[in-house]
This record gives sequence, C-alpha cells and structure tokens, in this order.
Amino acid sequence: MGDILKCKLIVSYDGTEYSGWQVQTNAPTVQKAVQDAVESSFGKRYSVTGCSRTDSGVHAKAFCCAVDFKDDNVSIPVDKIPIVMNRYLPVDVSVLNAEFKDDSFHPRYDVVYKEYEYLIWNSPIRNVFLNNRAFCYPKTLDEKLMSDAADYFVGKHDFAGFMSVGSSVEDTVREIKYFTVRREGDRVIINVAADGFLYNMVRILVGTLIEVSERKIAVGDIPEIIASKNRKNAGFTAPPEGLYLSKVVY
Amino acid sequence: MGDILKCKLIVSYDGTEYSGWQVQTNAPTVQKAVQDAVESSFGKRYSVTGCSRTDSGVHAKAFCCAVDFKDDNVSIPVDKIPIVMNRYLPVDVSVLNAEFKDDSFHPRYDVVYKEYEYLIWNSPIRNVFLNNRAFCYPKTLDEKLMSDAADYFVGKHDFAGFMSVGSSVEDTVREIKYFTVRREGDRVIINVAADGFLYNMVRILVGTLIEVSERKIAVGDIPEIIASKNRKNAGFTAPPEGLYLSKVVY
Repeated sequence: MGDILKCKLIVSYDGTEYSGWQVQTNAPTVQKAVQDAVESSFGKRYSVTGCSRTDSGVHAKAFCCAVDFKDDNVSIPVDKIPIVMNRYLPVDVSVLNAEFKDDSFHPRYDVVYKEYEYLIWNSPIRNVFLNNRAFCYPKTLDEKLMSDAADYFVGKHDFAGFMSVGSSVEDTVREIKYFTVRREGDRVIINVAADGFLYNMVRILVGTLIEVSERKIAVGDIPEIIASKNRKNAGFTAPPEGLYLSKVVY
Repeated sequence: MGDILKCKLIVSYDGTEYSGWQVQTNAPTVQKAVQDAVESSFGKRYSVTGCSRTDSGVHAKAFCCAVDFKDDNVSIPVDKIPIVMNRYLPVDVSVLNAEFKDDSFHPRYDVVYKEYEYLIWNSPIRNVFLNNRAFCYPKTLDEKLMSDAADYFVGKHDFAGFMSVGSSVEDTVREIKYFTVRREGDRVIINVAADGFLYNMVRILVGTLIEVSERKIAVGDIPEIIASKNRKNAGFTAPPEGLYLSKVVY
C-alpha cells in the first residue's frame, strides 16, 4: 500500500462560532469540522491531531494539525488537498496548506515554538469590522510601557502565576522567545512566542500588560510577580476574541 | 430655542446583514438602525438623510448622513454623540464622528466627490477573516493591466453603459477623479472617486477591470466601450461584498 502516512495541514479559522479546537460532545469545534471534511474528501474517517487546544472564541491564522492516513493510499494530490477540503469545510475554516510527512511527525510533540498574536482595538469607538476579532479597549494604552513590561517576560521562567486556576499541568516552566507590543493607528498588536503556553497564559500576560499601562502594576514589579507564582498578582485574563494562534514552528 | 439645526454623522457599517442604507418595509436597513438609535439617544424621532443609497451587502468605512433636529435643543455634547449613539446601535453599525451644521447642509446635494474601495481576495484559498468582506477571486489577476484600463475611465464621460438596467437616471455623465488598482500580497485593492455614481457603476467598473485581466476585454477597447453606452459591452457586475463606501468629501 502507500507510504504516505501523515498529512500536515495548516488551518486558519475564525473561532467565533466554535468551542475551541478540541472535539467536545454537544458543542461545535474546529477539530470536528476538519475531521468531517477529511471524511468527505477522502471517503473515510481518519484521526486528526492538533498542535494544541485553543479556547472558545480564539482564532487561528495558522493552526497546525496532522491527518493520520495509516497505510491507506491518498487519492488526492497534495497540492489539491486544500482546495478539495475547503469545498467541504464551513466558510469560517480554511485549509491553507497540506504537506505529506512520514509517521514520525507529531503536530504537538514536534513543536519548537508557537506564536500568538493579540489584537486590541484601542478606541472608544468600536470598529464594526473587528467585532469578535479584537478586544475593544476604550482608554488609550501606553504601548511603550507595555513593551518595557513585555521585555521582563522574555526567557525561561516558571509561569505558574500566569495560568488559570483549575489547570493540572506539572511543569510550569516555559521559555518565551520574544514578546513585542506595537501600535498601528488605533490597533495595538502584541506578539508572543514560546516553546509552550500554559492554560490562558497569553490572555493573562496581555491582561498584565494592560494593567501596567493603567499603572495598576509597576513595570519594575514584573520579576517579583513572576517569582511569586501566584495568579492573584498577575493581571486580568484578556478576552478570547483578540487572540490568534499565528505561527507554529517545527 | 437652540440654533443647532443639523448634525452630520460619519457612520461605518458592515452591510452583510442589511438590505442597504435606505429604509424599506420588511427589510433591515442601516438608515432604520440609525433612526432608531437617534430616537433612543435624543428621546424623539428625527429624520436622517444619507449621502447616497448603498446596495444590500455593501459596506461603509465612512458613510455620511445628517440628523435634522429642526428647532429642538440637542441635549448631548457633540463629542459625546458617537459614544451615546453607539450604545443603542447594533454592533455592525458605528458612529465615528458627529459635527453640528447649519440648516443649509445637505448630505447628498453638497457632496463634492465620493470614494469607493473594492477589495478582492485574489487566491484560490479563502480567507476566513474576509467572508462577506471581500470578493474571493481564485485566478491570479494582472493588477498592472487593470490599472492601465482604469486610467481610461478617469475624466468626464457618459457612463450610460456602466449602469444596471432598470435605472431611470436622466443625466448619466459623471466625472471620475481617480481610479487606482494596487496589490498588497493576495489583496487587490481598487479605489475610485467621482462626483457621483450610477446604479451599480462601481461594481460594473470592477467587473470590467477583471475581464480586462482575463483578456476578455482589450485595454485599448475601453474608450469604444464607454462611447457605445451599451451595458452589454461592459464587464460583469462584481458582487456587493467587496464594496466599501470609503470617503465622502464636501
């Protein structure tokens, strides 16, 4: 039989209507939509494994998942897979790219780092084209101060205080590669890359930067807040609609 | 009583859920949404006049309309009007700016020129963040050739052939100030400004440029096609979802 074993897919989605990536009973999920499209495209149900979970309402510019074809022949040329699958996918999910991989590829364990983008519409007047696509924050943010605060997070730290309560991860040490804040007009755009993220970690980091801008948290206190490993010392959890999984590097 | 007579509003809207600007019986319109928000904000129903109609599904980055307060006092400071009205407007309509004008101001008759933007997502792979917000055109467009064709339209012409059948306008001469086509990655962005537009004129102009790119219409034939005043010689009517009213100049 065929020697193609896995197919790596880059998937973009508007997460507004989904309860995140991971399949759940009685809730629409992106994983379910992709599995259904795989079945319609290839005539058989295959398992689809994602690079991570995403929360309800969170978006992806470039999520990564893998279809495990086992020993089956794949009937569609690899460059046609996005076109075919997009015929079956709902309009808010799109396969951007497909690439065959051998059986050793694992979309979660093989990740070197992932990047998230957080989009803030920083104006008292809403942007109708960013409903559910950005966090609308009315008070003017100090992106320079936020950027100074972000610098303190770069590197290897125990982020136990930047994780929502209820998570049961054992190792809470993560390495942030870069964490940047920039303004483009009324948009404040935050990018953060790490070897892994704890539950709600990006949203808590963003909430912390906003509280720095609001002078509720002093920039110089960030190392102490990290060291405290106490969720109560960090900022609020920014809402999901501003968050995009933007890059997965293997 | 007060000497504030009219209030000029700049309004942005996502037109997806609306049957255009103009009030209709049994269909949601942006004008109706604005009139309702005026009533909720000022405690009384006032007439709201727009700068033009827009088609069903067409968007606006900066539509202009005027509320006629007659001789009534306006209870809200002008800089607070957008904030107050946006509390009552649906999330897909937003007042960006408010400015008091005297009674002589007319949002339609006083227009010097209007600009429309047409957004094409030029890729065989859909962009989930541009559903209903762009025309998704799969074949690669030649933006240089389209721009050459656009140049022929600039100036004063009888655009009778670039109007949907069924329109009963008498004077079909309009002056196009500028008409540009540019590419930004997979986006092709068309901007066209004129002293006025006939029914579906922008969408037919865009369809014509696309047929030039497809070599169905020769660039050099544009003057002849304009002179023929025959709708059949122009290109197809591009769909509404790519169209944005982007600027109104008085």
